[in-house]
Amino acid sequence: MEIILNLLPLTREQQIAFLGASEGHLQRFMDPGDARLLGRDMLENITVIIGNPSVATVRQCPGLKWLQTQSAGTEQYEVPGVLPEGAILTNASGAYGHAVAEHMFAMLLALMKRLPAYRDARGSWEDLGAVKTLEGAIVLVLGTGDLGSSFAVMCKAMGARTVGIRRHPERPAAGIDTMYGMDALDQLLPQADTVCLMLPHNEETAGLLGKTRLQKLKQDAILLNGGRGSAINLDALTELMAAGHLWGAGLDVTDPEPLPPEHPLWMQPRALITPHTAGGSHLPEIAPKIRAIALARLRRYLASGGESPV
Amino acid sequence: MEIILNLLPLTREQQIAFLGASEGHLQRFMDPGDARLLGRDMLENITVIIGNPSVATVRQCPGLKWLQTQSAGTEQYEVPGVLPEGAILTNASGAYGHAVAEHMFAMLLALMKRLPAYRDARGSWEDLGAVKTLEGAIVLVLGTGDLGSSFAVMCKAMGARTVGIRRHPERPAAGIDTMYGMDALDQLLPQADTVCLMLPHNEETAGLLGKTRLQKLKQDAILLNGGRGSAINLDALTELMAAGHLWGAGLDVTDPEPLPPEHPLWMQPRALITPHTAGGSHLPEIAPKIRAIALARLRRYLASGGESPV
Repeated sequence: MEIILNLLPLTREQQIAFLGASEGHLQRFMDPGDARLLGRDMLENITVIIGNPSVATVRQCPGLKWLQTQSAGTEQYEVPGVLPEGAILTNASGAYGHAVAEHMFAMLLALMKRLPAYRDARGSWEDLGAVKTLEGAIVLVLGTGDLGSSFAVMCKAMGARTVGIRRHPERPAAGIDTMYGMDALDQLLPQADTVCLMLPHNEETAGLLGKTRLQKLKQDAILLNGGRGSAINLDALTELMAAGHLWGAGLDVTDPEPLPPEHPLWMQPRALITPHTAGGSHLPEIAPKIRAIALARLRRYLASGGESPV
Repeated sequence: MEIILNLLPLTREQQIAFLGASEGHLQRFMDPGDARLLGRDMLENITVIIGNPSVATVRQCPGLKWLQTQSAGTEQYEVPGVLPEGAILTNASGAYGHAVAEHMFAMLLALMKRLPAYRDARGSWEDLGAVKTLEGAIVLVLGTGDLGSSFAVMCKAMGARTVGIRRHPERPAAGIDTMYGMDALDQLLPQADTVCLMLPHNEETAGLLGKTRLQKLKQDAILLNGGRGSAINLDALTELMAAGHLWGAGLDVTDPEPLPPEHPLWMQPRALITPHTAGGSHLPEIAPKIRAIALARLRRYLASGGESPV
C-alpha cells in the first residue's frame, strides 16, 4: 500500500478525483505549511508526495519513492541527500509552458516596439524612432523543453526563423526550425536577433552567458531569460548595456532574486524586468493543468505497482 | 501620355525601377515638400501622383486621374473638392498591416501580463497578481481590412477565438472565425475579452464607442485602438477607467492628437499609449512594401491605358 501526501491546493471535489485514482491506498491532503506538523511515524511511511513540500519535510521521509512537484523548477530537491536514493522526481513543467512562453513573448514584443521607453516618456507625444519586427528575425532558443518550444512556436507564427539549442540535438522540438547541441552556442550567438534562455539551473547552465559570450551578441540583439537567473552574469550584462550594447533585455529571472532595489539594471532604460512572475499561479489556467498532470501520473504510478509514474 | 509625379523617398536604383515601369510616359521624382515649387503648367498636366502630396498641391491638379498614397489613411484627400471628380484614390494599407497589427498585438500582450504596471514599479520585486492569456480569449476586431485581419491572425495563432465586424460581413477575412455586420456591435461588445479597433475615420466610425457602448464592455476587458482616434470618446473612456472599469486600454491613436500632456489618461495606470507610431516608417520593412504596391499598380494602370490601377 502506498502512503500519499497530497499538498496541492484542492477543493473537496478535486480531492475526490484524487481519491478515486488511489483506491486501496492511503492519501492525505494538507497545506504544505502544515506538513511539518506531521508526526515522525507518519512521515517515515510516506511513499509519494504530490506538491512542493519543504526540503526539511522531504528529508524526514526515508521511504519516499516518488515526488511530483507542482513547480517546473526542482533544484532544491536535486541537492544530494534531500531525496532518498532511487526516489523518482517529476515536475509540472508541462503546466507552465504556455504561460511562461507567453510572458517572455510579451516582453520580446514590448521591447521590439519600445513600449517600456514609451511608458517612461508618458505625457510626451515624441516619436522614439525605428522599431523591430519578428518577421524574418532569427530567434535562438536555449533550452527547448516545454517552455522553450512553446516560445518558439509563438515566434514562428509571427514569421521568425527559429534555432534551438538542447543537450540532445537529435531530439526535435515543436517550433524549432533547426536544432543544435550546446557546442554550437558560441557560433550561433552572433547570428541571432533574439536570444531566449529557457534553461533550468544546473552545473552546465550556471554562468552560461558571462561577459565573453554576452559580447558576442549582435549590437542590437534582444536577450530574454525565462528560465533561471543563474544562466546570465548580471553584472556583465549591466555593464554591457550601460555601454550601449543590446537593443534590450527582458528578464523574468535574475541572480540574485529578489534583484535588490539598488541594482543598476533596474534603471537601465532598455531592460524590462518582472519579479519571477511569468509562471507561478499567475494564470488561472495553470492550476487545472498541474492537477491533470499529477492525476494522470498517479494513475500510471499505481497501475505500475509503484514502479514508475511516467 | 501620362504625367506622373512620384513623391516616394527613392534611391537612384529604385527610381530606375519606376522608370522601367513607365516607359513612354513622363515620370518626375521629387520630395513632397518641393512639389509646391512646381509651376502651374506642370501641375495642370499631372495625371498620376504616387506618394502623399499636400492637399494644396492636389487642389492644383485638375487633370489628376489617380492618386496612390504611401499612407494607409487617406481622409485628407477624401474631403469633397480636393480630388477632381472621377479621380481614383488608392492607399498603401497592405504595407502597414503587419507593422500596425504587431504593434497593437504587443500592446495587448503587455497589458495582459501587466508589463506597464511592472515597469511603473521598477525596483520592487512585488508580485502584482494574476495575469491574462490569449488562449481561449474572445477577441473582437472592428474593421477587418489589412490591419484588422493581420491582427486577428496573430491572436488566433496564440489560441484566441476571433470575431470580426465589417461593413460587408459576407466577405471573409483571414484570421477571423466569425464575421458580423455593424448592426451586431452592441450585442458583441459584452462578450469580448479584447476589443480591437482598426477602423478608418469616416462618418460611420467617428464616435462609434461613446459612453454607452464603452459601458457594455466586460469589467476586465482590454480595449485597443490602432485605427483612428476619433472612433473612441476619450473623455468617456478616461472616466470609465478611473471608476475601475476595464483591465486595460492600449491606444496608438487618440482624439485629439497629440494627446495633451495634461490629459488624465496619460496617468491612468492601466492605459498604455504610444504616439501614433504603430505604422509610419517605424519598421524598415514598410518602405519596400510601399514601393512594391505602387510599382505593381503603376504597371497595371499603364497596361490598362490609364483606366484602373487595380
